[in-house]
Amino acid sequence: MTSDAVTPVLAHVDAQLDASVERLMGLLRVPSISTDPAFKADCDKAADWLVEELAELGFDAAKHTTPGHPMVVAHDDEGEGIHVLFYGHYDVQPVDPLNLWNREPFDPAIEDTPKGKVIRGRGAADDKGQLMTFVEACRAWRAVHDDLPIKVSMFFEGEEESGSPSLVPYLKAHAEDLKADIALICDTGMFDPETPAITTALRGLAKLELVITGPNKDLHSGMFGGAARNPAHVLSRVLADLHDEDGACTLEGFYDGVPELSNAQRAQWDNLGFDAEAFLGSVGLSVPAGEKGRSALEMIWSRPTCEVNGMTSGYTGAGFKTVLPSKASAKVSFRLVGTQDPQAVLAAFKAHVAARMPADCSFELLDTEGSSATTMPIENPAFEAARQALSDEWPRPAAFIGCGGSIPVAGHFQNILGMDSMLIGFGNDDDQIHSPNEKYDLTAFHKGIRSWVRVLDALSRL
Amino acid sequence: MTSDAVTPVLAHVDAQLDASVERLMGLLRVPSISTDPAFKADCDKAADWLVEELAELGFDAAKHTTPGHPMVVAHDDEGEGIHVLFYGHYDVQPVDPLNLWNREPFDPAIEDTPKGKVIRGRGAADDKGQLMTFVEACRAWRAVHDDLPIKVSMFFEGEEESGSPSLVPYLKAHAEDLKADIALICDTGMFDPETPAITTALRGLAKLELVITGPNKDLHSGMFGGAARNPAHVLSRVLADLHDEDGACTLEGFYDGVPELSNAQRAQWDNLGFDAEAFLGSVGLSVPAGEKGRSALEMIWSRPTCEVNGMTSGYTGAGFKTVLPSKASAKVSFRLVGTQDPQAVLAAFKAHVAARMPADCSFELLDTEGSSATTMPIENPAFEAARQALSDEWPRPAAFIGCGGSIPVAGHFQNILGMDSMLIGFGNDDDQIHSPNEKYDLTAFHKGIRSWVRVLDALSRL
Repeated sequence: MTSDAVTPVLAHVDAQLDASVERLMGLLRVPSISTDPAFKADCDKAADWLVEELAELGFDAAKHTTPGHPMVVAHDDEGEGIHVLFYGHYDVQPVDPLNLWNREPFDPAIEDTPKGKVIRGRGAADDKGQLMTFVEACRAWRAVHDDLPIKVSMFFEGEEESGSPSLVPYLKAHAEDLKADIALICDTGMFDPETPAITTALRGLAKLELVITGPNKDLHSGMFGGAARNPAHVLSRVLADLHDEDGACTLEGFYDGVPELSNAQRAQWDNLGFDAEAFLGSVGLSVPAGEKGRSALEMIWSRPTCEVNGMTSGYTGAGFKTVLPSKASAKVSFRLVGTQDPQAVLAAFKAHVAARMPADCSFELLDTEGSSATTMPIENPAFEAARQALSDEWPRPAAFIGCGGSIPVAGHFQNILGMDSMLIGFGNDDDQIHSPNEKYDLTAFHKGIRSWVRVLDALSRL
Repeated sequence: MTSDAVTPVLAHVDAQLDASVERLMGLLRVPSISTDPAFKADCDKAADWLVEELAELGFDAAKHTTPGHPMVVAHDDEGEGIHVLFYGHYDVQPVDPLNLWNREPFDPAIEDTPKGKVIRGRGAADDKGQLMTFVEACRAWRAVHDDLPIKVSMFFEGEEESGSPSLVPYLKAHAEDLKADIALICDTGMFDPETPAITTALRGLAKLELVITGPNKDLHSGMFGGAARNPAHVLSRVLADLHDEDGACTLEGFYDGVPELSNAQRAQWDNLGFDAEAFLGSVGLSVPAGEKGRSALEMIWSRPTCEVNGMTSGYTGAGFKTVLPSKASAKVSFRLVGTQDPQAVLAAFKAHVAARMPADCSFELLDTEGSSATTMPIENPAFEAARQALSDEWPRPAAFIGCGGSIPVAGHFQNILGMDSMLIGFGNDDDQIHSPNEKYDLTAFHKGIRSWVRVLDALSRL
């Protein structure tokens, strides 16, 4: 069901695709790694780049400073009817290990692959390519019709990959400026390359860094080994004890608030024909890990997790050093579902560690943070309208799905602005986000722009 | 009991101490880190430095290439009677973490400390300062008497801190050139700052790097977490299971060949009045770790150990990256005693790891190496002669002691050259070898030179 207004806009998108890609390349060339202070100026540069683009498109656009990286806010109030706030982030993940990339991460290019053309570069899929699908959809709409069909605001942050420390204070301080009828969040994926999706269940996240200290300096293992407490052993014990033999997390009360899947939901997901073997096979695995008796899809969409994201102790350079380490540390995160309380999970972790500290070892928990899981109200008619619009663009009808990742901003929009979010994105499982060789399919970018053109139109007719 | 020949040599040592220190500083300025290929040229430079010094002293000195770092061999056959081979190593440990040093590690200096003057710098104690005590003793003896009192050869390697890969082939190929009546090895310590020691029991060493691989690349923990096997969890389990609740190593057959301490030896060690509290307190600890019911001295001199020397997995940089790691690795070493078989220990470790590999994880053991423990024949009269000579120099009589560290060269001299070794050194427990701020007490250097003057004399009168 394509309205008369849409057809010429879609034609314009097709005709201007090369220019759209060239603009995305410009943004991808900015190494806006938010977690590393060395790239602070680059984060600022990416924000300036967006402000300039949006102003050129006729938006009232501005960069707002925060204690961290700046926010970009833009408004176009000329449209009628529903008012949407589009959210994205211009920061990207670090790029290490650099030697595993097939090109410089910030020198993006179109590459031919057996599966089609891809846009290769850090941030191509997460989230610069995704946010540009919406910007380019607005550009096409204006080029053809002068005005956008609805009221559109945009909100881009630069700290999503580093825990969004400025987000909540900013939302609280600027609630009036940011409030709209519904938020559109473009940081999620397709169900598969032919099936678009609206993500309606998001896991929460609790995370921390654990540092265990034993001796007050690295020791010679020959001189002290055996007699001095080794914090690497203590850390191993703490981490090994986080899961039982059946893959369940052992933290006290961890499963409080974790709902069982309803039969209806289970049936809908079964119907999607998710191919666990292909999903795991794509990364060199074959057997679902995690809780015994749970399917891979259940594990990533509806179950909580407890994962070690990094750990280090002692000598890790080339060769061998028979040192007895002074410190051992790990970065640990939990994906949360249902009504699991992030603070309770963090407290249970702390108790778990404390119970395993031997004499002469102390520990600290650094950078603890938590956000709850979120569920979206699919009874809001905007959801069905968007689902129809997406179904018109892609080979297969759009699905309402869960998401393994955490997108805390959706919860913050709900809690602080009282605003629901529709999470629509065009990423694919093999995009290698957060990994070397990140890419975004050229088709995803192209049809993503076209999808937003259709969604804007559908929302204007609500 | 000081012979007439010795007195003027000791006086010469005292008068020339500043010049001796200055020469040591020259050697300390060469960053000869053998484990890191970036310092290959510096290792070569340290070897050249020694050849030049020894040639100047009248030795027939030469640098011999190996597949790794070169050997330095020097002979002075003019003396009479017993022929000694002095061994030391000119390579040093890496210096990281650099930020914990109070000065540049390769810009050595004399520093005043509450406990007296120290020579600060990487290698000051391990082993450049120690080997120079012997070189300077020879220099003083020649300056006063023209000739050395016995036949002296010297043998310096540059790979001791990186597992000595070239040592055994070199010893086998040059056995005739290196064979002497007894070896002197100067890579050990005093019992305490007033009590010199001859180390007669050395632990062996088995070591390896374990690398566990799960997914074929780092994954997004939100997308794959829970469903994909995390190798950091597997590594934690492998390492945690290496010890039981009583601190004993769980590897199959690990304690085969570990002798119980004889009552006589236990009584001798008890008499030394070892202060475990002070030993551990010096590094911020208070309670002996390791096997339950064993004293700290027993643990470090007579018991085998199993220690994690380093481990790494996933993201370890600043900030947080919710990655699910592809790989997790650890460097693990075992100190061996009695007749423990290093190859059997490595095989038992491999079986331990294999038994804990879940589906979708594979592992490799890299850089495996092993050397057995060694015990010296103190009934050889050279031992008592040297013990007397050391007792003449220091406030308290010299002791025959055990050593926690591994000095594989002593075993190789025994096995390949059929030659016993006397291990005499002047290091102290607080020298921070293998750690930041390594130092060598100026007193240890000074009295160390004087000690060798006395030992050379004592051996000449056997």
